[in-house]
Amino acid sequence: MSYVIPFEAGEYVARLRKVKERMEGAGIDLLLCTDPANINYLTGLDALSFYVPQVLLVHKDEDAPFWLGRLMDTSALKITTRLPAENLLPYPETMLHQQHVHPFQALCEHIQSRGWGNQTIGVEMDVDYYTARCHQTILAGLPNAKIVDNRRLVNWVRLAKSPAELRYMREAGKLTTVAMHEAIDNLLAGKKSYEVAADILRTSVMGIDGLYGDSPAAFPFVMVGENAHACHLYWTDREMPKNEMVVLELAGVRKRYHSPLARTVLLGRPSEEQRRLADVIIEGVDRALEAAKPGATCGEVENIWQNVLRRNNLSKESRVGYPVGIAYPPDWGEKTANLQDGDKTVLEAGMCFHFQSGLWLERQGIALSETFAVTESGGERLAHVPHRLYSRN
Amino acid sequence: MSYVIPFEAGEYVARLRKVKERMEGAGIDLLLCTDPANINYLTGLDALSFYVPQVLLVHKDEDAPFWLGRLMDTSALKITTRLPAENLLPYPETMLHQQHVHPFQALCEHIQSRGWGNQTIGVEMDVDYYTARCHQTILAGLPNAKIVDNRRLVNWVRLAKSPAELRYMREAGKLTTVAMHEAIDNLLAGKKSYEVAADILRTSVMGIDGLYGDSPAAFPFVMVGENAHACHLYWTDREMPKNEMVVLELAGVRKRYHSPLARTVLLGRPSEEQRRLADVIIEGVDRALEAAKPGATCGEVENIWQNVLRRNNLSKESRVGYPVGIAYPPDWGEKTANLQDGDKTVLEAGMCFHFQSGLWLERQGIALSETFAVTESGGERLAHVPHRLYSRN
Repeated sequence: MSYVIPFEAGEYVARLRKVKERMEGAGIDLLLCTDPANINYLTGLDALSFYVPQVLLVHKDEDAPFWLGRLMDTSALKITTRLPAENLLPYPETMLHQQHVHPFQALCEHIQSRGWGNQTIGVEMDVDYYTARCHQTILAGLPNAKIVDNRRLVNWVRLAKSPAELRYMREAGKLTTVAMHEAIDNLLAGKKSYEVAADILRTSVMGIDGLYGDSPAAFPFVMVGENAHACHLYWTDREMPKNEMVVLELAGVRKRYHSPLARTVLLGRPSEEQRRLADVIIEGVDRALEAAKPGATCGEVENIWQNVLRRNNLSKESRVGYPVGIAYPPDWGEKTANLQDGDKTVLEAGMCFHFQSGLWLERQGIALSETFAVTESGGERLAHVPHRLYSRN
Repeated sequence: MSYVIPFEAGEYVARLRKVKERMEGAGIDLLLCTDPANINYLTGLDALSFYVPQVLLVHKDEDAPFWLGRLMDTSALKITTRLPAENLLPYPETMLHQQHVHPFQALCEHIQSRGWGNQTIGVEMDVDYYTARCHQTILAGLPNAKIVDNRRLVNWVRLAKSPAELRYMREAGKLTTVAMHEAIDNLLAGKKSYEVAADILRTSVMGIDGLYGDSPAAFPFVMVGENAHACHLYWTDREMPKNEMVVLELAGVRKRYHSPLARTVLLGRPSEEQRRLADVIIEGVDRALEAAKPGATCGEVENIWQNVLRRNNLSKESRVGYPVGIAYPPDWGEKTANLQDGDKTVLEAGMCFHFQSGLWLERQGIALSETFAVTESGGERLAHVPHRLYSRN
């Protein structure tokens, strides 16, 4: 059995068409993608080829995109994508990590040679892997082009998932479910955070029901006590303190689609205050997900959650949710619409969000999140881990 | 037991002094670091705080660096670094992922308010996480500053490891050793690539001898058959083909220090040709490591390897090695000196390189690498996995 590209050819054609429609609306002739998730979305490419400069060129008049990248990685394109061989533009090894030359000079030469050097080119100004030097090289090499920020154009197309994508999102949710259940059991059994993380990693790759897992864009978080307040720390071999909260956050991943989830385990018996806090979060999520139907706005969904908090004299300053789907390191957010006060993005069926319903208070953090897909009957939860505070009683 | 910062305060002071010496040499008043490995090196910061804009400010006249980052991540700084609280400069949540405002505007305001707005500022032009928009924001916000590329100034300071750092490099090598042995056994026992990867992940975090492992900057590679030729693909559930080569590449990680290693397992009996290829690689590594002493240049070490290949009518186009140490996603290379023809960097004791002695031929790949530290008696191997081609006979 050789490599299986995760979607039919027609799915990629449809994605490309949507991107070109947006390009036309934005007056962009040539789109340059450096975000590996966007490149995967448009071609299927799935390899660690983004740690060196690479770029996907989508031109309004071309049937298929072009890929420019490191010579060594051309084979990965031949295996994981359907791009025609003549659309693969390798640059030589000698251009890597040099002070006097940059691979994007080869990109500029290609653009000039195709006669696109005086067109409008949309770049990803605020994407990791589109470094200041990439941009500088393009400005110098394409003096007659109009270079504009494409404003995460492809990310916006990715927001609403197709039925084929939703299948992988649900499968990812299955992996999340099995890894999270094991992690909760491990914590209650007294394991340390690095041991819990080690099992999460193994289990979310081993998967379940014949579904293996891909590598997540970020490593699992197992945040303990005071560290639960610092919500992006890594695991340690610290002794687990009694009566402290432990926040778990992890994502199962299928064909690069992420379904993240957070749960909190109290290493003791919950106080009345802690129970109440959990109840408020659970109610806030329930109310918000009921409203997460096509036609509602992101801001409206957030306000429903925030109103439940406010009624209980609580608040969460940061956004409560962000879109998820395909992701590569360093994180699994899609970076478009936010479940945040004032966000006017209108929900459509198939959009998927991580509803990060966590509260980080003065002395402790508690997070009980859900990843959901927007459906006509509200937010469909993609993982199935009982939505409650876990504890030792 | 609370969080333990991995080095004494004096170690960080010494690092900062070396960086300031180089700044003076380069005429840089203020250095801006966005590479999370550089920030870790100078402060100890160890958190996933780099998926949103953050920057470390090293000013020639200031005792301690300043950190500017997301409000939510300030706690991670308080836990994992010794930076004075007044040197932590959080920007508000509302600046994140906005089209009209960027967190680096807060950076520019801080620089202006300190009176540094007309000084020479060295930025990391070609570092992931220093996006085109970061740079654009700085150019607009600091019109009177002289903005220059710092040319990976901190990376160059990191090249030669201190005795305290070498301890972690050797510990990382121990984790590599145990994970690689298990992976080889798993392959010979018939496990699929995702199963092999799942065990590597778990074992390299569980560690050995009371040493747990950190998360690697890149996930392990288990590259099979034709895919072994595409050297940056991820694992799958593909059936393992008979008589094919499988290339394993993974890194044990201690306190963020990486010791990568590659080994090749043949799922059958080796042909004469394959044996010969392995022998050439092994001889090339042996000869090169004997010569990897202080005073030799990177290019000379590469030439010794290349001469062994050439004598056997082989060659490797890309560099044969790169420096390793602290790393965060997406990869574990330090991106300074290369073991490459013509590289005039002079080796010093304590420099560590991944000697990636792999050959990717027309139909198959074979890699038998070593990570070594430069010592007076040559390259000291940091992992201890017999340096040979593994096979089923």
